[in-house]
Amino acid sequence: MMTEKIPVAVLGATGSVGQRFISLLDDHPWFKVVALAASDRSVGQPYANAARWVLDTPMPAYARDMVIVPASTDAVQAKIVFSALHTEIANELEPAFAKAGAAVCSNASSYRRGEDVPLLLPEINAEHVQLVKHQRRNKGWSGCIITNPNCTSTGLTIALKVLDNEFGVKKVFATSLQALSGAGYPGVPSLDIMDNIIPNVGNGGEEEKVEWEPRKMLGTLSDETIELADIKFSVHTNRVAVIDGHTVCASVELENPVEPETAIQALRAYAAPLSARDLPSSPRPVIEVRDEADRPQPRLDRMAGNGMTTVIGRVRRDPILDLKFVVLSHNTIRGAAGASIYNAELLVKEGLL
Amino acid sequence: MMTEKIPVAVLGATGSVGQRFISLLDDHPWFKVVALAASDRSVGQPYANAARWVLDTPMPAYARDMVIVPASTDAVQAKIVFSALHTEIANELEPAFAKAGAAVCSNASSYRRGEDVPLLLPEINAEHVQLVKHQRRNKGWSGCIITNPNCTSTGLTIALKVLDNEFGVKKVFATSLQALSGAGYPGVPSLDIMDNIIPNVGNGGEEEKVEWEPRKMLGTLSDETIELADIKFSVHTNRVAVIDGHTVCASVELENPVEPETAIQALRAYAAPLSARDLPSSPRPVIEVRDEADRPQPRLDRMAGNGMTTVIGRVRRDPILDLKFVVLSHNTIRGAAGASIYNAELLVKEGLL
Amino acid sequence: MMTEKIPVAVLGATGSVGQRFISLLDDHPWFKVVALAASDRSVGQPYANAARWVLDTPMPAYARDMVIVPASTDAVQAKIVFSALHTEIANELEPAFAKAGAAVCSNASSYRRGEDVPLLLPEINAEHVQLVKHQRRNKGWSGCIITNPNCTSTGLTIALKVLDNEFGVKKVFATSLQALSGAGYPGVPSLDIMDNIIPNVGNGGEEEKVEWEPRKMLGTLSDETIELADIKFSVHTNRVAVIDGHTVCASVELENPVEPETAIQALRAYAAPLSARDLPSSPRPVIEVRDEADRPQPRLDRMAGNGMTTVIGRVRRDPILDLKFVVLSHNTIRGAAGASIYNAELLVKEGLL
Amino acid sequence: MMTEKIPVAVLGATGSVGQRFISLLDDHPWFKVVALAASDRSVGQPYANAARWVLDTPMPAYARDMVIVPASTDAVQAKIVFSALHTEIANELEPAFAKAGAAVCSNASSYRRGEDVPLLLPEINAEHVQLVKHQRRNKGWSGCIITNPNCTSTGLTIALKVLDNEFGVKKVFATSLQALSGAGYPGVPSLDIMDNIIPNVGNGGEEEKVEWEPRKMLGTLSDETIELADIKFSVHTNRVAVIDGHTVCASVELENPVEPETAIQALRAYAAPLSARDLPSSPRPVIEVRDEADRPQPRLDRMAGNGMTTVIGRVRRDPILDLKFVVLSHNTIRGAAGASIYNAELLVKEGLL
Repeated sequence: MMTEKIPVAVLGATGSVGQRFISLLDDHPWFKVVALAASDRSVGQPYANAARWVLDTPMPAYARDMVIVPASTDAVQAKIVFSALHTEIANELEPAFAKAGAAVCSNASSYRRGEDVPLLLPEINAEHVQLVKHQRRNKGWSGCIITNPNCTSTGLTIALKVLDNEFGVKKVFATSLQALSGAGYPGVPSLDIMDNIIPNVGNGGEEEKVEWEPRKMLGTLSDETIELADIKFSVHTNRVAVIDGHTVCASVELENPVEPETAIQALRAYAAPLSARDLPSSPRPVIEVRDEADRPQPRLDRMAGNGMTTVIGRVRRDPILDLKFVVLSHNTIRGAAGASIYNAELLVKEGLL
Repeated sequence: MMTEKIPVAVLGATGSVGQRFISLLDDHPWFKVVALAASDRSVGQPYANAARWVLDTPMPAYARDMVIVPASTDAVQAKIVFSALHTEIANELEPAFAKAGAAVCSNASSYRRGEDVPLLLPEINAEHVQLVKHQRRNKGWSGCIITNPNCTSTGLTIALKVLDNEFGVKKVFATSLQALSGAGYPGVPSLDIMDNIIPNVGNGGEEEKVEWEPRKMLGTLSDETIELADIKFSVHTNRVAVIDGHTVCASVELENPVEPETAIQALRAYAAPLSARDLPSSPRPVIEVRDEADRPQPRLDRMAGNGMTTVIGRVRRDPILDLKFVVLSHNTIRGAAGASIYNAELLVKEGLL
Repeated sequence: MMTEKIPVAVLGATGSVGQRFISLLDDHPWFKVVALAASDRSVGQPYANAARWVLDTPMPAYARDMVIVPASTDAVQAKIVFSALHTEIANELEPAFAKAGAAVCSNASSYRRGEDVPLLLPEINAEHVQLVKHQRRNKGWSGCIITNPNCTSTGLTIALKVLDNEFGVKKVFATSLQALSGAGYPGVPSLDIMDNIIPNVGNGGEEEKVEWEPRKMLGTLSDETIELADIKFSVHTNRVAVIDGHTVCASVELENPVEPETAIQALRAYAAPLSARDLPSSPRPVIEVRDEADRPQPRLDRMAGNGMTTVIGRVRRDPILDLKFVVLSHNTIRGAAGASIYNAELLVKEGLL
Repeated sequence: MMTEKIPVAVLGATGSVGQRFISLLDDHPWFKVVALAASDRSVGQPYANAARWVLDTPMPAYARDMVIVPASTDAVQAKIVFSALHTEIANELEPAFAKAGAAVCSNASSYRRGEDVPLLLPEINAEHVQLVKHQRRNKGWSGCIITNPNCTSTGLTIALKVLDNEFGVKKVFATSLQALSGAGYPGVPSLDIMDNIIPNVGNGGEEEKVEWEPRKMLGTLSDETIELADIKFSVHTNRVAVIDGHTVCASVELENPVEPETAIQALRAYAAPLSARDLPSSPRPVIEVRDEADRPQPRLDRMAGNGMTTVIGRVRRDPILDLKFVVLSHNTIRGAAGASIYNAELLVKEGLL
């Protein structure tokens, strides 16, 4: 498809999400990593020395000898910039890169709520990417910022999209069991999680994110703004002793109640919008529905579709609302680095680079 | 208080709940273990040989040399019989013991739904124990059967009792994160739970139990029957890599909505009914409310009140209903062996033995 | 290379090692699975129903609908038969298959000590495979039995081979930290290993195996017998909370003591015998030596060379003997299913099928 | 025994060893905690706010409201000072306290090798405490410094003492499987140890400590110096997914080889020196020998003797040397805080305060 690969960079390259970016960009058919940026204490070192690699797949050869540069628009020259930065740093740096002409595909939460910033899961709201046109006019940027949601919102929102399309969703109660890699490295001390769970995630903003972000992604783009979906959310978040893979237990009220079998059929039949369907990172399939009474399970199902597929199980009647089910999504692939890369691919496909 | 200790027996003494009974009955001020019963393959062996001890406290000295007897009314002579039997076996044996004159204090689920069988958590529904009078008349038994609820119902129901008393409870969404010891020994294979969660418990009846049992315990005793509380429940159950301690995340709708602070005050102020207050196993306090944003945690909080206290935290507004909170309860102490012992103490206190 | 694939079967197909066979044989360039055999209670069922899949890679499509057959020479028609049978069953069945003409490539311990049975790690003792000629004459079989060692012997023996070749090995003290998958499924109960280690493996024969098997593999084939290597072993085995990957800490006395750097050079320079070098399952490289002070680690290093490479680290002076080091090997790939497949490939390559 | 309790302080009170000191000193019959000292960022705060409590027993009531003071001789007025300081800080502060008149009972490694500093495990080398007389003359201190060994040396040395007394010990090969609490808090990141082991501990000095410290403790006090025992050690250290309890696998060469049964008898018969026998923290018994083939195990055995007993198992012949066995010791009780307290009690008993 491409005659020449598009130069891309990773900001925050040494952290655990940065590592996933580097791993997923290995041999990417469209993109070529030309710069790895990290904090001052890593700058100047070969990546292999600077990063404490935590993935169970080896560090890609291309990255080992790349010398880390500062995360500045001077030092990083790339058409696409993947941001695995911490929020406070992303707040400042992402607009600077967008202004300097880069398409910033961000995993940070800084601009997810921006009125002219697409919050994307291409398999469900690819059309929201058009918002970048408005963003560019608004801000006078030649680049742009596009974002992906919080890793816990991800799988849940994909499941809800199908149900909302077909039957209308009114209310959602959701409880998460989140993996350790979501906290980065060093992240959660082992003494805090061995023989234990922690009934809260992060510094407390996690539940609010999961109660708000799906409403934007399930919302309607019209007239250069996104109208939030009129769905109510109540969310509990928990950290559990799992390396990768966030599980969410959900109870849902529908406008047009259906039997579980009908919902399962709809979930299985779902296909991504055309523009998001055949990209290198497109999930294949978008959704897998398991029939077993004890699935999905993080260790067994997180790598479905190379970690991009949303796995759903235990779709059954809810005694108060209409349906109960369980959703699993790989939090550092579909829920973080893979998400930003998929977003970048959509941007290219839509000619918005 | 007692001049002579009451002879008691443990049925199913070698299993993990049986072990908790043996441990908690060590030096009990009112009870003396006179018989340990188990399945045929253990009969005739000293307990120390027959049981694969899984608790992290040592096997009590009194039990080591007791020779295991069959679980029959002939072999077991005791006023109180603690049942840690599997359901199918309990179905048959418990009535036989009751008929033979024993007070069967059961942790099995066999008779929890029996119309004349008390399902007890003495700190909240001690008055239900009076149902045994009716049971005896009904069945013509000199003994009786009294039961404690499923370990996941336990903490949740105690929390709900206080809220229901004060503000009225209408609906409950609950998601559990349950400990491994709830599955007994050998129970959950390590390959199933390492780096994993299982989004279902048991063979599937667990959620239905937790959706029904609290309604009986929160119900009203009148005219020799218990009217189920008119509260709706929707429950998800999960198994997590925790040894002991079940955590439940709950969202609750109230008849008279209140601020979290008011609910916390009520939870902290709660005292058990007089008859259940000063028994050897009474939880002290009944409820502990933690203020930290990340508590209760199983490893840190399960032994509150020697494993009998219900620990609650994160009491906050629910965006759809009224309140959200987290409840922790030790599943093999308050939720199993400790529960049956506390029930037996209540029976004695009320002169119903 | 092959015009037509060789028909192979897996005995004990539903267990955890059986699953690895099925996974590793997916798309094998030389072999085609024509039969899956298991115990009576699985016979007649499609594999997808009969097996409780525990690997984190999906069940290969080819296996899902294969109907399980009994492990008998009538029901199983294949040139090569991979045995993941339990010892007692292997005792009887493997000779029956060999007599019936099949090349039995066994992971069971039954015949490892047989005087005419090769115990193989092709990258170090490929020449021992010639023993099957003698075995066939001896037993009058058209088929044969060849075996791979215990999973804990595997990595250690490969490391020792290099040191023995170059410097002579006299004594070995080894302590293992073994993964849970080595015990099969359901295997180790979670209550036994959470927040715990077990300072023994199996029913006690494990240490004796690791003290004896390397001596055979490091021995010399001459005149139709193998002379055991004159090396002394002392072994401690432990089970730890790791899913896959056995770690061994070793202290070694050499005939010609060398500096750690010299040993590292020799380990890195090692190449398999020519006949074992370019087979589909050949480890690439045979040995990887890590320089970091805290490697190898099971989670990070077990998949080196697709799980076939032996990873060594911390090569340093021993204060009593000569060298200390740490060896890691994937126990169900290099140490079990992958081992038997590699053995089968060697058999084919040497024209001994 | 005491008419008035001796005022004691804890330096480094907020860390995980500091927490054990506070827990073990709750209701101590001889000592009363009068000061808790920690780093600047905690000074001035009530202990309950400053410490992130990681023990599974509740924070003692006495400590909750104590206001943290700086770790200086001005701020801390106590006869006995328990040091849970980091090495670099202990280097400076411990002599300052000793000079100011305090008996410093230290868990830090700073002065363990000091020629006039006792390295104590009272149940085996109580007489070494007399070295403080020499230390006081030497340094002109009214106070003193006494130390306990590294947590991994502890159990091993106690086992070796008995064998050395009775049969003479010549060589020791030891491999440790160490608990996470040994690394303090936050310590080991969960991503480093879930489904993993780390074949090294600390920054590399651990093995050298365990190869040297036992030689001092097993050495002979004469003429104001300790002659190191002439025993050779080779040690491998590993970190495993265990919360508390260090396990060591040991192979030992004896001067007068004996059968395992004889060694077991000697281990069981061992009694502490008279002066160390009836102190509040004396282990009861000093050593417990388990007969089972799979014990000791950290989760089941670490609390033997309230965490002060050394548990030994699998005493058997070693195929190269004479004996193999497994030792377990609670690393933050017998191996750290409990050790320093036991040392302090010995100091009092011997009139050396």
